[in-house]
Amino acid sequence: MIRFFNGKLLSLDGGFDVTEQEVWIDGSRIAYVGPAKPDMPGFEREIDLRGNLLMPGFKDAHTHSAMTFCRSLADDVPLQPWLFEQIFPLEEKLTPERVYAFTKLAILEYVSGGITSAFDMYFFRLSNAQSAVDCGFRYVVQGMNCPPEQAEEEYVKCNAMSPLVSLIPGIHAEYTTSVDEMKIVADIVQRHRAPFFTHISETKSEQEQCIERHGLTPTELFESLGLFEYGGGGYHCVWVSEHDKQIFKDRGLSVVSCPASNAKLASGVAPVQEYIDMGLNIALGTDGPSSNNGLDMFREMYLACVLQKLKCSDAAAGNAEAILRAATAGGARAMGLTDCDCIAVGKQADLIVIDLQKPSMQPVINIPKNLVYSGAKDCVKLTMVAGKVLYENGAFFLGEDPARIYETAQNELQKMLAE
Amino acid sequence: MIRFFNGKLLSLDGGFDVTEQEVWIDGSRIAYVGPAKPDMPGFEREIDLRGNLLMPGFKDAHTHSAMTFCRSLADDVPLQPWLFEQIFPLEEKLTPERVYAFTKLAILEYVSGGITSAFDMYFFRLSNAQSAVDCGFRYVVQGMNCPPEQAEEEYVKCNAMSPLVSLIPGIHAEYTTSVDEMKIVADIVQRHRAPFFTHISETKSEQEQCIERHGLTPTELFESLGLFEYGGGGYHCVWVSEHDKQIFKDRGLSVVSCPASNAKLASGVAPVQEYIDMGLNIALGTDGPSSNNGLDMFREMYLACVLQKLKCSDAAAGNAEAILRAATAGGARAMGLTDCDCIAVGKQADLIVIDLQKPSMQPVINIPKNLVYSGAKDCVKLTMVAGKVLYENGAFFLGEDPARIYETAQNELQKMLAE
Repeated sequence: MIRFFNGKLLSLDGGFDVTEQEVWIDGSRIAYVGPAKPDMPGFEREIDLRGNLLMPGFKDAHTHSAMTFCRSLADDVPLQPWLFEQIFPLEEKLTPERVYAFTKLAILEYVSGGITSAFDMYFFRLSNAQSAVDCGFRYVVQGMNCPPEQAEEEYVKCNAMSPLVSLIPGIHAEYTTSVDEMKIVADIVQRHRAPFFTHISETKSEQEQCIERHGLTPTELFESLGLFEYGGGGYHCVWVSEHDKQIFKDRGLSVVSCPASNAKLASGVAPVQEYIDMGLNIALGTDGPSSNNGLDMFREMYLACVLQKLKCSDAAAGNAEAILRAATAGGARAMGLTDCDCIAVGKQADLIVIDLQKPSMQPVINIPKNLVYSGAKDCVKLTMVAGKVLYENGAFFLGEDPARIYETAQNELQKMLAE
Repeated sequence: MIRFFNGKLLSLDGGFDVTEQEVWIDGSRIAYVGPAKPDMPGFEREIDLRGNLLMPGFKDAHTHSAMTFCRSLADDVPLQPWLFEQIFPLEEKLTPERVYAFTKLAILEYVSGGITSAFDMYFFRLSNAQSAVDCGFRYVVQGMNCPPEQAEEEYVKCNAMSPLVSLIPGIHAEYTTSVDEMKIVADIVQRHRAPFFTHISETKSEQEQCIERHGLTPTELFESLGLFEYGGGGYHCVWVSEHDKQIFKDRGLSVVSCPASNAKLASGVAPVQEYIDMGLNIALGTDGPSSNNGLDMFREMYLACVLQKLKCSDAAAGNAEAILRAATAGGARAMGLTDCDCIAVGKQADLIVIDLQKPSMQPVINIPKNLVYSGAKDCVKLTMVAGKVLYENGAFFLGEDPARIYETAQNELQKMLAE
């Protein structure tokens, strides 16, 4: 067992109270939350928090991890040339090995920024799932457009791979998928009673062109095909209609908002405050490193709040607690990780330690507001996934030296640029 | 002399080229930039950069440092109750000693985030200037509304206090200053041939109400009083008119944009891309910790870029290089720190080391884009002001233990809340 003691606890089990309770970990799970006891069990490690904060890890609920390879490769250019002239031609040079290497680079960034799981959508899903398993990182893979046999095979393989990995069916987006392909995924959804996720209404033209093509919005089209019968949700959801929102509400779907990416690509600002008011489940995602370019949930939380204030012309919109919940429990719910949402007995030990001795965390008046409005990655002291420490005080424990991960990524990228 | 070697150099002396040159520091100034030499002088310290990046420090060109005391005290509330019910009553309890203590807390945050100087506007200016001098931090104090004798005395005292400190005349804002008071400042401006800075057109109502009161915009009013005869500029500049922009252009004034604060208070998005296109000097400021709430120039740069992309509906707007320049040389120019803008022989040694071995800085394809789009405070390894290391690898060298600074700030805040 591992013992965390002498610190503050923001369990997010219910409200936002900060207590002084201890937390004990047994294997991958939380075994005890409460005061110190006179008769303690033997611990393999006792972690003195020295007054710092223990809290659930962040969930990055939409990302394309392996796109680390195109970080800073094509910024400050309009969307279409960015995608068609820069990104797509390079993506054709990807291999399973390259996706494995580029995903590992992203995992370094996740764990050093307090992210304990990611909901990934990309090519070579079994490769990037393997990367996560090899690092001890928790990963939800979104299934994408592929031939029916492969889709089924991936669904079964990925979900049997490791307790750290699962696959949720999905497609890339309406505008890259035929209705026949969607029906194949609908069949998997129906047979496995599985949720369904996809990019939805990220840009205005996506919404408009879908209506032109199908006489339906993307959300209406997916609903008409039965894809949402067992829940799920959409990434982005910037330009959804009133009827789309009602479908989200009726089906209990999650909105995964990606404020940084939507801003950087000039796509718009999702009506997150409206979603909150409707009682929808909100999660936050970084999107890929090509369009963000960081994998930083502190920045994402900050943007989620302040962009709502701007959008609503109201400094009270986008409040910090709602967004902190989205970045943790909301993400866990969207990703089907209902065991990883808070710090309570029986839950997975996916948690982080925040350094309250950083200047930006002082004075200690309101910890949730400090986290959202002045927190940054430098405050993360420790990241634990499934009871294993993957990052602590600048050091990584992922089974491979970071310098080697950097070198491999850099070399593979240079080869791709030269090919 | 101190020697930085074995690293990369982004000198920002001209363009954005990254070289492999060494940098030597003699006293407070840069003595040499170039390749290693066969006959080296004796160095008191040689800093092996191990491939990391040396660059000029960030300039926080608008802040109210001592407002660390109201961090996380009143967020997510509308502007008017925030200001009148929460902030103003507490500010009445400030003393010179409290301002000194709260400013020190901000300086910890500045140096750990790679900020080497701040342009401050607040009460008890001599106290917060003293705080900077005692820490070895570079500080530009903006003079504020006060009786004529005091204004003159502060101007002289502050500018004679230390090479680290200077005072630029100014007022808080049009809406808190009578025309008679402005004329007192205009007199100082004229006699000392000094630039003038103030809050300008932060909110729409500020702009509209000034027109109602004076038949002029704030910028027009200040111009009519001769306040801009020797240059200067404005903080925020969100709602300026076309004629205001022309005054900025004609007078060579600086715009200090505060994107995070303007977003968090729902004030709007300044037309920064337009200012760039006009060739104005742009600087970036965090504004105070009460309205931001972090003092984080990485977040500020990111927001400056992505908010322009949103505002212009163009992913090519707000490009990273222009904003990186604003956060460094643009700030230096606005603050009158023309000796601190880049890394070149004879310039002040106000510089930082960026850890390129952080996951978010990999792969190393385009360092300026990495800094702006995936950089964060955790990448700052070392901060030097006037040739002295104030922060290095998590440790502070400010003459006072951070734990004591935190404790004093926390205690004084508790007393203010109880008084």
